[in-house]
Parts: sequence; structure tokens; C-alpha cells
Amino acid sequence: RLRPPQLIALTFALAILVGAGLLALPISLEPGQSIRPIQALFMATSAVCVTGLGVVDVGTTFTTFGEVVMLLLIQIGGLGLITLGTLFAIALRRRVGIADRIQVAQQVNTLELGGVVKLVRTIVLSSVLVELVGTVLLSSVFVPEEGLGRGLYFSLFHSVSAFNNAGFSLYATGLTGFVTNPIINLVIPLLIVLGGMGFLVQLNVLAYLRDRRRNRLNANSKLSLVMMAALLLVGTLSFALLEWTNPATLGTLPLGGKILAAWFHGVTPRTAGFNTLDYSTMHYGTIFVTILLMFIGANPGSTGGGIKTTTFYVMMASAWGMVRGRHDTTLFRRRIGTTTILRAMTVGLLSLGLVNLGFLLMLLLNTNPELKFVQLFFETISAFATVGLSMNTTPLLNPDQEVVLIFLMFLGRIGPLTFAVAFSRPDSRTLVRYPQEQDILIG
Amino acid sequence: RLRPPQLIALTFALAILVGAGLLALPISLEPGQSIRPIQALFMATSAVCVTGLGVVDVGTTFTTFGEVVMLLLIQIGGLGLITLGTLFAIALRRRVGIADRIQVAQQVNTLELGGVVKLVRTIVLSSVLVELVGTVLLSSVFVPEEGLGRGLYFSLFHSVSAFNNAGFSLYATGLTGFVTNPIINLVIPLLIVLGGMGFLVQLNVLAYLRDRRRNRLNANSKLSLVMMAALLLVGTLSFALLEWTNPATLGTLPLGGKILAAWFHGVTPRTAGFNTLDYSTMHYGTIFVTILLMFIGANPGSTGGGIKTTTFYVMMASAWGMVRGRHDTTLFRRRIGTTTILRAMTVGLLSLGLVNLGFLLMLLLNTNPELKFVQLFFETISAFATVGLSMNTTPLLNPDQEVVLIFLMFLGRIGPLTFAVAFSRPDSRTLVRYPQEQDILIG
Ligand SMILES: [K+]
Ligand SMILES: [K+]
Repeated sequence: RLRPPQLIALTFALAILVGAGLLALPISLEPGQSIRPIQALFMATSAVCVTGLGVVDVGTTFTTFGEVVMLLLIQIGGLGLITLGTLFAIALRRRVGIADRIQVAQQVNTLELGGVVKLVRTIVLSSVLVELVGTVLLSSVFVPEEGLGRGLYFSLFHSVSAFNNAGFSLYATGLTGFVTNPIINLVIPLLIVLGGMGFLVQLNVLAYLRDRRRNRLNANSKLSLVMMAALLLVGTLSFALLEWTNPATLGTLPLGGKILAAWFHGVTPRTAGFNTLDYSTMHYGTIFVTILLMFIGANPGSTGGGIKTTTFYVMMASAWGMVRGRHDTTLFRRRIGTTTILRAMTVGLLSLGLVNLGFLLMLLLNTNPELKFVQLFFETISAFATVGLSMNTTPLLNPDQEVVLIFLMFLGRIGPLTFAVAFSRPDSRTLVRYPQEQDILIG
Repeated sequence: RLRPPQLIALTFALAILVGAGLLALPISLEPGQSIRPIQALFMATSAVCVTGLGVVDVGTTFTTFGEVVMLLLIQIGGLGLITLGTLFAIALRRRVGIADRIQVAQQVNTLELGGVVKLVRTIVLSSVLVELVGTVLLSSVFVPEEGLGRGLYFSLFHSVSAFNNAGFSLYATGLTGFVTNPIINLVIPLLIVLGGMGFLVQLNVLAYLRDRRRNRLNANSKLSLVMMAALLLVGTLSFALLEWTNPATLGTLPLGGKILAAWFHGVTPRTAGFNTLDYSTMHYGTIFVTILLMFIGANPGSTGGGIKTTTFYVMMASAWGMVRGRHDTTLFRRRIGTTTILRAMTVGLLSLGLVNLGFLLMLLLNTNPELKFVQLFFETISAFATVGLSMNTTPLLNPDQEVVLIFLMFLGRIGPLTFAVAFSRPDSRTLVRYPQEQDILIG
């Protein structure tokens, strides 16, 4: 019998393998184009894990059939993890103490009634609805640009890609042609933010907006929303400040374009991966801020990646509490349990370990003397956090490095703790409890 | 009234200011040499914090008077933190529960008898003894090289610099002239390892060697020794593997020289900072492994820096225990307390935060387009972990960046947690205990 984390990992692996097989078929490839098996595996992994890194260009390599395969993989990957993740989160909540039962039952109110089927239906329907609205809005740009049929298809593809935080584009240069287009700069970020908000947060916010007296915003929602707003602000402001005069990025744009583009690139490190400017021309400071934002990532239970905003907050709050000599770490007048803190620290630590190991392998396996330290660092974080931004590095990697990124995307999407728990044998020796050691010097 | 962490920070700050004043005096400077105030502050900080980074070259800039000032600052910085740190550790131990009192009393046996004065005397005398033995051994190299008087002086300087993990050399190119010299490659690393072992570990090991039946190795000693050996092995092996054929480093050396140099550079990232090869010519993989080893650092209560080997182990063990679903994190059949784990996690997190902030500032303030991302990254970690290795970056920095490194060296040496606790107001609101929040989604 499979445990839930194993189920998630295996489902994803299966989807990736099937997807890679389909992408390698001649029907998926434009005439004259070819793709190595490892490249097909890379593209399928990047789609299912909603990363958006590409070793080949989607638009010129794949036929419409191949592109639709990519689109379906993105949709399966995005919805799949929200659905499984949400079910998993609810299952975990059911194990909380009797004192919290009532509060929990209240929060997942609508879910308890109809059960799992209703939950899945709610997730799928609401996602499709948002994606269709996105498609309609984007068509006002893409239809004039590409004609009716092709324009609608482009709108659908980019809407799905944005809502699922995938970041794949049918344009070889991403969305760089639309750097000052207000529709693109508002609709795409809106889809990204909605997708990265987390499904339980969305439900809770909707319930709250419907009836503010009976429904309250729970701690997870409040924390997720505050963190997301704070990180969007930090991202946008730092991008604007650092790139304002850079002639290769914001420097040559008019004032309105500067603001739109800074906003766009403040949103996209929340693991969305679209870009309207070239990251290889940016200030090192912008690159590093983007790296930090990518690593932190989106809200849990969303289509976004990274260690997650809540993990980041709990780690920070706990460290700060330690500094202030507090007995407890608190949040909205509630104590955060030691298990939650240790879990957050473990997620952070495993993620760091994984990223460090992945980066080391990327450096060791590198055969291209053109590729710089910073490019491979950026690429590694981007893959782990399933962001998809690149300093024009991905097509220059060798097959060994592609394999490293495939593993990083997969482990990053499943979550390193989930994965580690899934495939390590639970310890059976926990019955013995040793006396406490007090003598380890720390720091 | 000052609390102990405040006392440590202020003592160090005072020593640095006095040292900077002395180094800026004309009597400290060779004819024709000048030094900006910020450079004098940098050199004094680097000496007191036993870092070894230099914005100017010690040998050519300073007179013998200036060099002796540097030597004294190194000695004060090295011994000062061992002494204060050890007293602090013992004071902390005194607060442990009644059940552990007997074991603790046994460990600090010799210290309890004579009290603080005897402890300080023991530390000073044993350090001076080791440094003198080091001087004698090194004189067999430096006396033939530099003549009797100058040779003995060089031996003393490098012995003190090595034992205190300072890494300053009187040679402008460090110890690169001695890359295959067996005495240098054995004595310097031995001094580094002894200095980085931690004073309580040294005491415990000596007691154990004197009488194995009555004295046992305590958990802190065992863990420190095991971690140190493991990290030396990892450092040496990875350096050898990665640089074996690099024509700029090990490639052109004979077999014996290869092994000696690999061993030397396996030891030196334990925050010692000496080098016999040029880091700017090394493989990116070597650079990154060195960065990781520097960040982990030496044992606590030693002359070395970094987050400390024990901190690293406790973090890893706790994360691994979480993965395996263990209730407790254990070490040598003892449970590691949650407070110790949270303390380790906090030290790791504050250090990461500090390093990230420092690196961001180094990037933002950079005005030299020649300086690469990797050079500034390496330099930042080296300063924080008080290592002193550099990819030939330090003299190319501007005054703003020098100030950033001064703060990093200072905070890194004091320890970010110690510093944060010293200068933040303890929270007085801990009397209210809120109910536990169960609903934060992590990872
Ligand atoms: K993405
Ligand atoms: K050093």
C-alpha cells in the first residue's frame, strides 16, 4: 500500500514518462526538428513540474499536437499537485487535537459536506473558469497580433501557462515583445498571483467575501496573503530601484513602461517564470534578489514552487523569537507549535541541501567554459523552485546537467521533505527514549 | 550592567579601534606607504577577528612595529574569544538541570578547582606553548630562507597566525612559495587544527589521554573530533579530485607535492585562510566546496569561525530525524534537546541571513566591473566565516565594500546569535501564552 507522499511522487513520475514519450513522437515535432530522449524527458518534466525551463524552444520545435501535449502536462501538473496537496493537507488537519477540531471543521466547511469528489470538482472547475477568463482577456492582445484562431490558441496557452505558474511561452523570446503592453502586464501577473495563492486560501477568501460575519480568514490565509503582498512589494521595488537606469532593461522605457515592467518582474520570481526583459543583462543585485525571491517561492498548496512563504515566515519568526528570548513563537495571537517550527526548519534545510548539491553537480559536470558561476547558480535555483527564469543558460547545458535539472525540478515540485519522507524507511527504533544531552556547544 | 554577549562585543570593538589607531600611526608604516582610516580599521578588524583578509599587504605596508601590532591583535583576538567563549560556555552549563550537574561537574573538573583565574592561565599558557613549539618547527624553514633574526620573527608570526586561525602572512603572495615544502605543509595545518579544535575539547582530550579510566570523552568532544576529521577528509579528497589535472594548481606538481597541497587546502577552509595556491585559478567546483566548508567552519570555543561543526551536525541530524519520523534527535545514545536544535537552526538561519544581506550589499555597492559574482560571493563567505581566503578580490574593493566586510568579520567572529542577543531587548511579553495554532501549511 502506498502512502500519500509516495502516491504523489509516483503519479508525477508516470505523467512525466508518458509526456516524454508523446513529445518524442514524430507527430509532436515540426518537420526538420529532432529531439533527444533526455531532451523530451526534460521538457515533459519542466511541463508537469510547471517550471518553464526549456532545452528546446516550444514554439519552433513542437507541432500544435506537441504544444497541446505540453499544455495538458502543465494542466495535469498544476491541478494535480493542488488537488493531491489539498487533500493531503486536509488529511493532516484531521489528525489535530480535539480542541482544534471545531475550528478546523469550520474552515474546511464546504469540503466536509461533499467530500473528496466535490473538492476535486471545485478545484478543477474554478481553475478552468479562471483560465477561460484569462484567455478572453489575453485574446484582446493575441488575436490582433496573430489572427483569430491562432490568437485564441495563443491566449489559451499563455493563460494556462500563467495560472499554473508554468511560464512556458509560444514565443521564442518569451514575452519580451510585450514589455510595455498593459494587458499582458496586468492579466498575466493576475493569473500568476491567483495560481500561486494556494487553493485553501482562495476558498477561505471567497467564503470570507461572501459572508464576513459567519466566515473568518484563518491564520494560514492571513499569513499567506500578507507574505505574498510583502514579497510582491519587495520584488517590484527592488527591481525598479536596481534596473531603473540600466539601458539594457528599464533604462530606455518610458515611465509607464518602467513601472509596468518592474511590476511584471516583481511578480514573476514568485515561481511563474515569464519574462519581458533579458535576465542576462541585469545587475548582479537584481539577479541575487531574484534568486532569494525564487527560493522563497509561492504559497503552499498552490501551483507555485520554492520553500513556500509560510515556511519562510515560520523560520524567520522562530529565529527572531530565539533572539528576543521568547518562550514561544506566535502568530496572530496563536502559538506556533514546535513541530511546525521544526518542520519549517527541516523543509528549509533539505531545500538548501538539495540546491547546494544540485549546484555543485552543475559545476562539476559543466563542460562549457562560456557558462559562468552566476548563470549556473541562477539556473539551479530556478529549476528547484520550478520558476523557469534563465540567464539564457538552459540550451547551453550538456545532457548530464539536463539530468541534474530534471531531478531538481521533480524534487522541488514534490517538495524535498515530502519526497524524503516518501522514500525513506520510517525509523522503528523510536520506542527507546534516551536521556537528554545538554553539552553540545552551538554557534 | 553589561551582559556577557555585550561584554564580548564591546571588548572586541575596543580592541579593534585601538588597533586601527596604532596601525594608522606613521611609526607603523614603511616609508612612502600610506593607509586610509577605513583601511586601518579593516586591517585591525581582520586581525582581531582572526580573518586574514587584507586590503593592503602586511609585509610591504607595515614596519616591524606595525606587524607586531597586527600580531598582538591576532593574539588578543584569538585568545580573547577562546577565553570569554569558554567562560561563557561554562556559565551556560551551570544552568543545566539537576540531573546533569554531576556529569558537567566531572567534565569541567580541573576548571572548577582553580576557578576563572586558573582557566585563563591555562588557556594562555597552553596557547603560548603551542605557538612556541610551532615557531621552533617553522624556523627550520624560515631561518635558512630569511636569516636567523628575520627567520625566527617570520616563524613566530606565522605560528601565531596559524594557531589563531588568522591566516595573515608576511609574504605578499601568502605561502605560495612553499607549495611543496613538507614542514610548512605539516606544521601549519597542525597548528590550524589544534587552534580550531576548541579549548574544552583540548582539555577533555588531554584529560582522557592522561587517564582513560577516570576521564571519558564527552559528547561535545566526540562530536567535534568526528566532524573535524570528516570535514578534513572531505576537503582534502575533493580538492585533490577537482584540481588534480588543473595546470594552474596541482597539475604541474609532482605526486608528493600534489598530496601535500591537497591536504593543505583541505585544512585551510576550516577558517585558517592560508593558501599555497591561487584560488582565482581553481575550478568552480573547488570554489563552491571551499565556500561550503568555510561556512560550516571550525569547532565552537576555538579560534576558528563559521557556523561551527556542531551547529551543522545538529541541524543535519534533526532534519534527518524529521525525515525518518523520529520523535527525538539522538547523539551517542543521548537525546538532543529541542532548545539545542532550535538554537542550532537559529544560528544557521541568522548566519545565512547575514551572509545573504552582506553579499547583496557587496553586489549593490560594487563599482568595479572587473569583479565577478563568484569573487564577491567567495569574499563574503570568507569574511563572515573569518577565513581570509580570497580570489584576489580584497585589494580591488571600494571603501563602501570594505565597510560591509568589516561588519561581516565582526559579526561573524562574535557569532550572529550572540550579537543579536546582545543588542536586542529581551521580550517582556512572554508571560502571556497563546493557544497553539495548528493550521499553518509548511513546505
Ligand atoms: K514556473
Ligand atoms: K582566518
